[in-house]
Amino acid sequence: MMVKVGIINVTGYVGMELARLLHQHPQVELASITGRSAVGQRLGEVLPHLADIDLVIEPELGEVTLVFSALPHKTSVEAVAAALERGIKVIDTSADFRLREAKEYQRWYDFAHPAPQLLAEAIYGLAELNRHQIASSRLVANPGCYPTGAILALAPALKEELIEPDIIVDAKSGVSGAGRTLSLGTHFAEANENVSAYALEGHRHLPEITQELSGLNPELPIAVTFVPHLVPMSRGILTTCYAKLKEGREGQGELEKGMRELYREFYRDEPFIRVVDAPPQTKQTLGTNLCLIHPTIDPRTQRLIIVSCIDNLVKGGAGQALQSMNLMLGLPEGMALEGSAVYP
Amino acid sequence: MMVKVGIINVTGYVGMELARLLHQHPQVELASITGRSAVGQRLGEVLPHLADIDLVIEPELGEVTLVFSALPHKTSVEAVAAALERGIKVIDTSADFRLREAKEYQRWYDFAHPAPQLLAEAIYGLAELNRHQIASSRLVANPGCYPTGAILALAPALKEELIEPDIIVDAKSGVSGAGRTLSLGTHFAEANENVSAYALEGHRHLPEITQELSGLNPELPIAVTFVPHLVPMSRGILTTCYAKLKEGREGQGELEKGMRELYREFYRDEPFIRVVDAPPQTKQTLGTNLCLIHPTIDPRTQRLIIVSCIDNLVKGGAGQALQSMNLMLGLPEGMALEGSAVYP
Amino acid sequence: MMVKVGIINVTGYVGMELARLLHQHPQVELASITGRSAVGQRLGEVLPHLADIDLVIEPELGEVTLVFSALPHKTSVEAVAAALERGIKVIDTSADFRLREAKEYQRWYDFAHPAPQLLAEAIYGLAELNRHQIASSRLVANPGCYPTGAILALAPALKEELIEPDIIVDAKSGVSGAGRTLSLGTHFAEANENVSAYALEGHRHLPEITQELSGLNPELPIAVTFVPHLVPMSRGILTTCYAKLKEGREGQGELEKGMRELYREFYRDEPFIRVVDAPPQTKQTLGTNLCLIHPTIDPRTQRLIIVSCIDNLVKGGAGQALQSMNLMLGLPEGMALEGSAVYP
Amino acid sequence: MMVKVGIINVTGYVGMELARLLHQHPQVELASITGRSAVGQRLGEVLPHLADIDLVIEPELGEVTLVFSALPHKTSVEAVAAALERGIKVIDTSADFRLREAKEYQRWYDFAHPAPQLLAEAIYGLAELNRHQIASSRLVANPGCYPTGAILALAPALKEELIEPDIIVDAKSGVSGAGRTLSLGTHFAEANENVSAYALEGHRHLPEITQELSGLNPELPIAVTFVPHLVPMSRGILTTCYAKLKEGREGQGELEKGMRELYREFYRDEPFIRVVDAPPQTKQTLGTNLCLIHPTIDPRTQRLIIVSCIDNLVKGGAGQALQSMNLMLGLPEGMALEGSAVYP
Repeated sequence: MMVKVGIINVTGYVGMELARLLHQHPQVELASITGRSAVGQRLGEVLPHLADIDLVIEPELGEVTLVFSALPHKTSVEAVAAALERGIKVIDTSADFRLREAKEYQRWYDFAHPAPQLLAEAIYGLAELNRHQIASSRLVANPGCYPTGAILALAPALKEELIEPDIIVDAKSGVSGAGRTLSLGTHFAEANENVSAYALEGHRHLPEITQELSGLNPELPIAVTFVPHLVPMSRGILTTCYAKLKEGREGQGELEKGMRELYREFYRDEPFIRVVDAPPQTKQTLGTNLCLIHPTIDPRTQRLIIVSCIDNLVKGGAGQALQSMNLMLGLPEGMALEGSAVYP
Repeated sequence: MMVKVGIINVTGYVGMELARLLHQHPQVELASITGRSAVGQRLGEVLPHLADIDLVIEPELGEVTLVFSALPHKTSVEAVAAALERGIKVIDTSADFRLREAKEYQRWYDFAHPAPQLLAEAIYGLAELNRHQIASSRLVANPGCYPTGAILALAPALKEELIEPDIIVDAKSGVSGAGRTLSLGTHFAEANENVSAYALEGHRHLPEITQELSGLNPELPIAVTFVPHLVPMSRGILTTCYAKLKEGREGQGELEKGMRELYREFYRDEPFIRVVDAPPQTKQTLGTNLCLIHPTIDPRTQRLIIVSCIDNLVKGGAGQALQSMNLMLGLPEGMALEGSAVYP
Repeated sequence: MMVKVGIINVTGYVGMELARLLHQHPQVELASITGRSAVGQRLGEVLPHLADIDLVIEPELGEVTLVFSALPHKTSVEAVAAALERGIKVIDTSADFRLREAKEYQRWYDFAHPAPQLLAEAIYGLAELNRHQIASSRLVANPGCYPTGAILALAPALKEELIEPDIIVDAKSGVSGAGRTLSLGTHFAEANENVSAYALEGHRHLPEITQELSGLNPELPIAVTFVPHLVPMSRGILTTCYAKLKEGREGQGELEKGMRELYREFYRDEPFIRVVDAPPQTKQTLGTNLCLIHPTIDPRTQRLIIVSCIDNLVKGGAGQALQSMNLMLGLPEGMALEGSAVYP
Repeated sequence: MMVKVGIINVTGYVGMELARLLHQHPQVELASITGRSAVGQRLGEVLPHLADIDLVIEPELGEVTLVFSALPHKTSVEAVAAALERGIKVIDTSADFRLREAKEYQRWYDFAHPAPQLLAEAIYGLAELNRHQIASSRLVANPGCYPTGAILALAPALKEELIEPDIIVDAKSGVSGAGRTLSLGTHFAEANENVSAYALEGHRHLPEITQELSGLNPELPIAVTFVPHLVPMSRGILTTCYAKLKEGREGQGELEKGMRELYREFYRDEPFIRVVDAPPQTKQTLGTNLCLIHPTIDPRTQRLIIVSCIDNLVKGGAGQALQSMNLMLGLPEGMALEGSAVYP
């Protein structure tokens, strides 16, 4: 029997990507979708590429076992709490449950978190690090797109204490990462043929990156400089991470090849992580739940450079949420996430 | 049991797209791949986005029931003949079997076709028009990308004798249509931020379009002006067709809505054709086997305008070839072609 | 002594392009700029690429000899009338003075034109056709971007009565043509990797095209089908025009080469028209006031195909306006418009 | 009287951009152009966007006062030596004279430099650092595109000893930086919708960056990690530099604003450097010789982050070469380089 699931706010980029992926799931039925606009319309009227999905956008969530909230931050928390009260498992793709400390929401998102008790309960939905907790959780906070690329790139090096905890994360994202809300910066003629850095004063994904990296090795005083960049493409994030090799580590032969073996070992059984021998390209992940990771060493400066690639809307959004759903429902983790990249 | 199939020349864009689609087919096994270069290498080394496919590029085709030849024109004909001799069914994605008259190859492709007897046997692989012949054929000529978009857009109007046979086809294609062979015109910095018309003296897809449209209504003396354009995107073809409504037709009420109903009726049971109410966008077909068609009437000039959209590498290439394969193998026609578009 | 000019609404794409071009003019001084937003700010704060222009955005136009109104249609007419009353010459880049008949504004723009007497006076600012009237005018209506490409492509053929007056104009425009106002269709992730036709029910530039083409040969009952398309680039319009050769014309040897000579002759002394032997590319005009035109004949259908390319913001907007300004001020027509295209 | 100059190898991207810029120079005449291909053809036949330049591509350089060699590295050195022998001043846009030590050519370019005595004489053509030497030189080595962005971003901080000499340079370049020679990585369908890091093992621009930064403060043992990235646009480089503030510096109030003032002071009279208050965008420099620099401090990690933007073909290539030419000919440094960016 098919498990019924729903999507709250299907009309944003993560919401619509969830619908696309769920529609091809053999054991899950997308049974209810809601939207902040377009209520009462068929999904295919609003999003023609999803015309195969025979659903009407409803004002309220129907009967489902699990729901994805794809609302923006601040507005998601309420919908999540309501669903949990109805006994529905929740995967929240907003930031509302990613940070463990309520006060961080005050600082970074400028709002008093109304449900701190749920923060304590929420599991950070990065299956590669928290597989078991996700499987037994009723509330999963789906990671941000930038944190996904950064944490997966850095986790092995930090956990194995290969690097100094002073880290630079330079990320390059496609424009869909900014969502479907209109802005001058994402207006085609402005974003096209253009690259820029932004949020130099501190991007909201920074506390999330720091929190999760710190969790990997609680004694290390992690310091991260994170600079996101906008590049003229629709999808994809390439993350370049830089950190000094820990003293003593250089001499132990963990050069290039050894480093790559260590990464391979760390991610040995992961279905969606590929440690690759050549610098990866974002396009090699387009439409997939993959994270490609390429660790390398700058021999001139004894610095570890790790490059990772994801599709920000799949592994960095809807795909990773589906991966968590599969775990929470006791289904094979990779179900409905097997396709290869649409290339070129 | 899985049916074994092969791909000759997997390293071009159609070849690699065939591999992507076949890999997700539940009843067909991609068992043998060959390449003109990279023989002996694993597929994932050459095409990292296909690393999940555990195959080595071989010099010769192995034992298979059906093979796709994704060689360029002129070189494909020989490989096709050899496979047929081995009793292997063939779908040829080159132009080598699309034209019925051998002399047309002399005229348009500048070579003497070495197997005219096979031309007589080959079925033009547009399932929407030739479903039954494809199913019982051993040799299918997969349509060109431009002809696919043009013929599907025009077939109902021509067959129902709604339009004068004097037709303009103005097509806009993404750059992957030019293939993977390097050229200045497809060099990124030249093709980016640029639109151009080309092959104004006569594109090789013109005889194919004329031949198939003529076949729909043999009495009509079809005259087609076809102008292809290159637009700065990787995938997609948008085709805009123009033809005068037949005299008498204007008065019969086949305006806009009626026209759309007629198109809907014509394509009623087609799994991959969608007659849409709003102008379609190529991106709504990205990665899918769909053809979106929007017929409309210019009331000021009594001209029928039909816009169609496809992904040139799927419905205009590998996807359509798979559709024919499903028919030839007695499998459900849409198998492994169900996914929605990767949007945005 | 420098002539002082102004720009009303400098913050749109045509307004800012006017500022860029005027800033490099050796005999004209950009002396006053106004905006609907950002009043009181330095131009460089609002538009960093114009930081060299040391001006503050004012609420009201200062003392100038000539002004460009770059307001949107409907709102421009009032500003234009006010400037004329102050004795200032005006070039209006909106549509408000392009159509000669006030009733056409009701039909196409859904507003009652408040100054029909000025319509009678306004000169359509296509220097190639109306050079002398522009020079002696105090009110010039700067042509729309699509009409510029279409009219320049078709004028010689119509004037010389080479073609039947039943014409198809299939135009492909970069996204800046839609202006700087935000919309989902011009949101980067939606417009990128996408081509679409729009305004199939009738684009507002159609009456403008028809009016001007009809003026070329008043006896001919011109019928134009015009379909604009959006392509994923910032700038540029490529226009493909189709029309049957007039009967009798085919036999008179006006084939290909003759046709090109006729076009060359027609545009012999034009500084910004280039009749080219190979299909032109929009990128070859980027940043310039050029219009490249390539007339050719489809020998199979006796149809004239004319391809033209412009930069929609220069020859299709600000550059053409400057060209008219030069004429109105008695300056060399091409002044400040000499640069070659920024390519690639 | 006009000074005659020439371009050796006009058909590459730097060569053609030199032609574009020189053509609008009021005191210099482009008198001779050579090419490795297309000898005997008019420039406009080969490069239609330069049809205004009435020159034929010659096999040998004519009589000129100064020449730009736009040949690729290894092949340029000979042409440069020959021109110098003829008494012609040379600006070499290849890498052949950028490194001071001949042995570095062995190491990084894999060839024995045939003219080490000229290396000693060549001036590194970064006017902002070497203005006077350039003016009196007969041989200028035009900086690489990446080094230009990196050195200008870092020079003030290093010279003023604000930062530790352990530096990360993460650069994002448009595809034209890879030149006009065809390759799979610059094939449109591969480079489009794609971001990748490359040359992680050590890019050839690294020794150039290190050499010049070391020259700024010879006592400091500079260590640079440099990672270039390819982004899907034609032009532009955005460089993000990271370095720790020197101990003691944090407390001295060189925060954000002070830092910016220091940068402003350093570049006070520079015509082409703009220290900007908001993160700059590459598009704001398109077609111009500008370098926009935005220094900022990450208060959480006491790290200086400097973002710079250039047009890789202008300030990172032909424009900078023209700037040096103006100095060498005693002309105003900014002549023919005044235009604002073509935006959007």
